[in-house]
Amino acid sequence: MELGETKTTLLINAAMSAVGFAICMSIIPKFKDMFIKANLFGVDMSKTTKKKVPEALGVVCGAVFLMILFLFIPIPFYKHLAENNNDFPHDKYVEYLAALLSICCMVFLGFADDVLDLRWRHKLLLPTMASLPLLMVYFVNFNSTTIIVPQPLRFLLGFDLNLGILYYVYMGMLAVFCTNAINILAGVNGLEVGQSWVIGISVLIFNFIELSGEQRAAHVFSSYFMMPFISVTTALLYYNWYPSQVFVGDTFCYFAGMTFAVVAILGHFSKTMLLFFIPQILNFIYSVPQLFRFVPCPRHRLPKFNSSTDKLELSVTKFKYQELSILGKLFITIYKTFGVIKVWEKKGEDKQYMECNNFTLINLIIRFLGPLHERTLVSIIIVFQIFCSMVAFTIRYQLALLFYDKLS
Amino acid sequence: MELGETKTTLLINAAMSAVGFAICMSIIPKFKDMFIKANLFGVDMSKTTKKKVPEALGVVCGAVFLMILFLFIPIPFYKHLAENNNDFPHDKYVEYLAALLSICCMVFLGFADDVLDLRWRHKLLLPTMASLPLLMVYFVNFNSTTIIVPQPLRFLLGFDLNLGILYYVYMGMLAVFCTNAINILAGVNGLEVGQSWVIGISVLIFNFIELSGEQRAAHVFSSYFMMPFISVTTALLYYNWYPSQVFVGDTFCYFAGMTFAVVAILGHFSKTMLLFFIPQILNFIYSVPQLFRFVPCPRHRLPKFNSSTDKLELSVTKFKYQELSILGKLFITIYKTFGVIKVWEKKGEDKQYMECNNFTLINLIIRFLGPLHERTLVSIIIVFQIFCSMVAFTIRYQLALLFYDKLS
Repeated sequence: MELGETKTTLLINAAMSAVGFAICMSIIPKFKDMFIKANLFGVDMSKTTKKKVPEALGVVCGAVFLMILFLFIPIPFYKHLAENNNDFPHDKYVEYLAALLSICCMVFLGFADDVLDLRWRHKLLLPTMASLPLLMVYFVNFNSTTIIVPQPLRFLLGFDLNLGILYYVYMGMLAVFCTNAINILAGVNGLEVGQSWVIGISVLIFNFIELSGEQRAAHVFSSYFMMPFISVTTALLYYNWYPSQVFVGDTFCYFAGMTFAVVAILGHFSKTMLLFFIPQILNFIYSVPQLFRFVPCPRHRLPKFNSSTDKLELSVTKFKYQELSILGKLFITIYKTFGVIKVWEKKGEDKQYMECNNFTLINLIIRFLGPLHERTLVSIIIVFQIFCSMVAFTIRYQLALLFYDKLS
Repeated sequence: MELGETKTTLLINAAMSAVGFAICMSIIPKFKDMFIKANLFGVDMSKTTKKKVPEALGVVCGAVFLMILFLFIPIPFYKHLAENNNDFPHDKYVEYLAALLSICCMVFLGFADDVLDLRWRHKLLLPTMASLPLLMVYFVNFNSTTIIVPQPLRFLLGFDLNLGILYYVYMGMLAVFCTNAINILAGVNGLEVGQSWVIGISVLIFNFIELSGEQRAAHVFSSYFMMPFISVTTALLYYNWYPSQVFVGDTFCYFAGMTFAVVAILGHFSKTMLLFFIPQILNFIYSVPQLFRFVPCPRHRLPKFNSSTDKLELSVTKFKYQELSILGKLFITIYKTFGVIKVWEKKGEDKQYMECNNFTLINLIIRFLGPLHERTLVSIIIVFQIFCSMVAFTIRYQLALLFYDKLS
């Protein structure tokens, strides 16, 4: 496609996204009662009022996003459709359909999870299956599983390395990672949507920068998905921001995570995508001892609301140090040494108890800055996410030169 | 693809369908409590016990169906994937993806409807959108909108007629029709699933007959979808048969309807598909006065349960004849003349009231055969559906010869 045409289709996509934003702004409040009536609601644990807040409104955004793209799809193929002369680029069209199929599956799965409270095995099985058509498209359209080895490692591994099937495993895991990484950095109003919003904007900026590059087609493709995503997310953020009028549910995390994974895979920028997930990766690494149960993990790890100060404080997990596994003790010791957890030793009825804060990025911030108002806390994390995106761009465009001869 | 290869892939598909059947048989009972806990249940209005029956279990079948097909998709393309020599048949692959995308959207929509009780505009909007990718595939792959005119009409219209855009409107409406036609022929245990099961088997038999014909590829494609569909439906029928342990929900009707529409459109046999819907079409025509509100339509039109006889009797609608519109009066008069409704005239406080049975195929059967046990009633309708399928085959293979020179 020529540059002029690309601009036109991007503008049409932007206009449709704007309409999508307006639709979401208008319909999200209207759906509130319907969700509460359907038993889909939660009570905000960090508020004094105990009113019902509708849950899983991410599904409305997901549906609007899908509709925008269903209507948009013919546009990039307009010329071929008008001519209808048997040279229709099926190989391109197949990418759109596979992307939408994966995203649609995930929105569906997320909603089913919010409604039915699915078990972990369902949550891993269906997304893996849903990414199969996507990986098959990657296989037949690109099948490039060779990575360029960074310069410092070349003496060991050579110039490039064909990862073969491992590359597909990596891509399959990318979907699972993106989804769950957003899902576990949560617990204060506006956080899931806010972080996704920053990541979405970062990806779009990256796409726009690369529009003049060799991989233009891939970044145009990604932009087609990112603009509607950002628009519906902005509307959702408006209603989910402190104090939340609606909750977004697992549906939103699944929807956002799969959208990012899809554009990263079909746009060939999965490494850059991971750079935009730095806060999520930090949160994941910090959480490992609890996620893998080396240290007891309560059902909710969100910070504790103190109604007298209207601030959020550290939430804790309580255990007997002696009963931890070796790895558990090791983690506690390391975290204590580096000062990234706060530990209280308490005398119980018969034994020595230990309490420490839950291992989440949110608690880590409270540990260093002290109790914070919920709005301040979420703002700090969003600013941190923006800062990390800037770091990501620096790494992508400056530091990469040290490790690679040229940017790829 | 050669005949031998086709046989192999069909056998693999059949084997995977058998596994899908076993999975559904095993997991449907396990999901029961999860659905009841999520407030997804109904009380069977035609039983004396008032226990909670889990609702919308069709979503489990839909999910298993999608997973079977996600895993199956690579098989028909095995040779191309193994060679990986740039001649991958994207135009074929795109049909699978568009079909799955439409079905996935509909399962999602159906489930959202069961949970949220969506309004009519949502129910018409999303399926229409969801069929867009499908119609686009039809446009680029076939774009055959010319129909052969039946012989008796040729003096008027000529040998063939290009319907152009109208043909796409017709296909778009096919999805809406199939979905809703199954949805409104409901109200006794096992009926939605039973009728879909008969239609599914009829389509599969038709596909197998046509395997030796010119349109083999289209019928192989359809079989790939029909076999898993029949297998998950059989399992669901087992649990939904009288007395129902589970209800199937709108989810199932949407899932079944869209699956039929998809194979009919991409398999080019939409006319034959409609022949398998004769009972649904009769029910729809009979229902028109109530569906379009010429005659008052109560929220539920299912037959009335008489607990003393354990039989189902006519359910009625009550109105003042004088207050009906002209069309309403006309319908009542015509139906009365042909004896297809039973009418009672009653004296109310101040005015003359009229009562007549609700206009459904179920009530029509009770009107002629008298009150019936629920299991007998549903069995009669299923037998009628089978009989209509035989009529359909006769029309398709015998009568069509009278109207067309050769079969198409």
